[in-house]
Amino acid sequence: MIALVGHPELRLVPDFAEPERRPGEALVELRIAGICDTDLQLCKGYMGYTGVLGHEFVGQVVAADGADWVGARVVADINAGCGVCDRCTEGDSHHCAARTVLGILGRHGALAERFVVPERCLVRVPDAVTDESAVFAEPLAAALHVNDDLPEHCRRVVVLGDGKLGQLIARALVASGRETVVVGHHEDKLSLARAAGASGLLESAVGSELHGADAVVEATGSPSGLDLALRLVKPRGTVVLKTTVANPGALDPSRIVVDEIRVVGSRCGDMARAVDLLAARRVLPAPLIAARYPLRDAEAAVRHAARPGTLKVLVTAT
Amino acid sequence: MIALVGHPELRLVPDFAEPERRPGEALVELRIAGICDTDLQLCKGYMGYTGVLGHEFVGQVVAADGADWVGARVVADINAGCGVCDRCTEGDSHHCAARTVLGILGRHGALAERFVVPERCLVRVPDAVTDESAVFAEPLAAALHVNDDLPEHCRRVVVLGDGKLGQLIARALVASGRETVVVGHHEDKLSLARAAGASGLLESAVGSELHGADAVVEATGSPSGLDLALRLVKPRGTVVLKTTVANPGALDPSRIVVDEIRVVGSRCGDMARAVDLLAARRVLPAPLIAARYPLRDAEAAVRHAARPGTLKVLVTAT
Repeated sequence: MIALVGHPELRLVPDFAEPERRPGEALVELRIAGICDTDLQLCKGYMGYTGVLGHEFVGQVVAADGADWVGARVVADINAGCGVCDRCTEGDSHHCAARTVLGILGRHGALAERFVVPERCLVRVPDAVTDESAVFAEPLAAALHVNDDLPEHCRRVVVLGDGKLGQLIARALVASGRETVVVGHHEDKLSLARAAGASGLLESAVGSELHGADAVVEATGSPSGLDLALRLVKPRGTVVLKTTVANPGALDPSRIVVDEIRVVGSRCGDMARAVDLLAARRVLPAPLIAARYPLRDAEAAVRHAARPGTLKVLVTAT
Repeated sequence: MIALVGHPELRLVPDFAEPERRPGEALVELRIAGICDTDLQLCKGYMGYTGVLGHEFVGQVVAADGADWVGARVVADINAGCGVCDRCTEGDSHHCAARTVLGILGRHGALAERFVVPERCLVRVPDAVTDESAVFAEPLAAALHVNDDLPEHCRRVVVLGDGKLGQLIARALVASGRETVVVGHHEDKLSLARAAGASGLLESAVGSELHGADAVVEATGSPSGLDLALRLVKPRGTVVLKTTVANPGALDPSRIVVDEIRVVGSRCGDMARAVDLLAARRVLPAPLIAARYPLRDAEAAVRHAARPGTLKVLVTAT
């Protein structure tokens, strides 16, 4: 089958071995996959991962232990915990030390004709959600997870970054009723954020009016993002870090200490919650699609996604 | 009067101007002051502060608007908010943008024969607390404040640093019933921590048994401290930063994000709570005293405090 590998070199493998379904796993046929910045970093050697790329997907189950899964249109939690350790039994499989992560750690990803996912990770996609909407469930779940780290009383949130992740985070915050300001470098993307109910501001125009934000979400992936976040957040405010692969930057902890700021890392979220929001049409991701490529052109899709400023590039099965 | 200035050069000024008491302020006569690492950093130009040093003290009120203060033995919250801004009216004067901080920001400190403190900052010292115990109230309050940032269920805490701040933090954690491990470089100081109810471990002996700590408190003031804290804390655990003046270090945010760690800055605490704990003899700071100098030898006291590994140096009025 066709599959895309990112590292040590980006290459479409035309005759990749068919996945072998083990007990408890579902064999899933790709419908659409999305490319995110983590994929681009994996291509550069992040995590040392050399398997098939792809962790944002919507697919169809073609084989599973549970008969009711067969034929279902699904997305999945990409973190598959071992199921038996303390973390997993306490319901926190996202931090299981023995976890696999689809397309990132120990498990081939979704940029292939077929792939396997533990059945316990599957989430059914309702008919009301199109494939092009469902493929956003994974990054939207990560975006919604920002809310889990914001204090209840936190009303005004600044999102740094108008890229695909920043856009989804802004939508997740707006959907939760928070006053949201997106700071970015591209007027066209700020317009997208505004159309989704946020305010949009060019970084060059950031003035004192943004200082004292209850919370700032860092979604730029650049070292200067954390620095700006620490300057904008109020004392005892919250900075949420969403980008895994920012270059190490020089951090002066004295601002964090003197102003007693809380810096919280945030990764993956609850897939079912994301699907619910998509089904209710409270988040409409369609404007974030930049391009579509068939799987056989997945190399070109990744190269397109790597162009600075590109929103979501999708890869379709055919 | 005699007063000690730290920057641009450390010098004892024999004829420093007497402080002028304004309405709402108390004139306090020094009994004992303590020297902390922030003082040493102020000597190097931290905060650009050029006034009289000293923010850890116990003194006696010699003049005040409130007659019942006169003659009282006191310590004080070193943060004096403006009293009228939103922060202050919400009870968070520690983060008032217009605050003065005794001996640190906009207000001459306690390493002088006399100094002024807003009456609203004063805390009375009960007879049961000796001067040499009361002088620890300020750093102990800061140490106790660590508890405010730890989740309720957090049982096992690692303290990085066996110096004077780490020692007080360990005592604050032990007093709150938490299982506390101090990691340091000096066997004699680790013994002090053990005598106070904590475990003590040489950093060179840190192995996998410490990994997965619920929380780690960084009290080394070294850039490598944050790095070690991030390696020891469990996923979704808490790292509390207590040292304001660590050199900027390279921070790789990916560990924070992937393991969803919470990094919280922590500065000053509640003075009354500290005094209560000292009065109840639940924290006994006496073993942390390294040396005593009279105020006229305060320069020598600071130089002593600056020797690596020195615990608390006290400066007495006479």
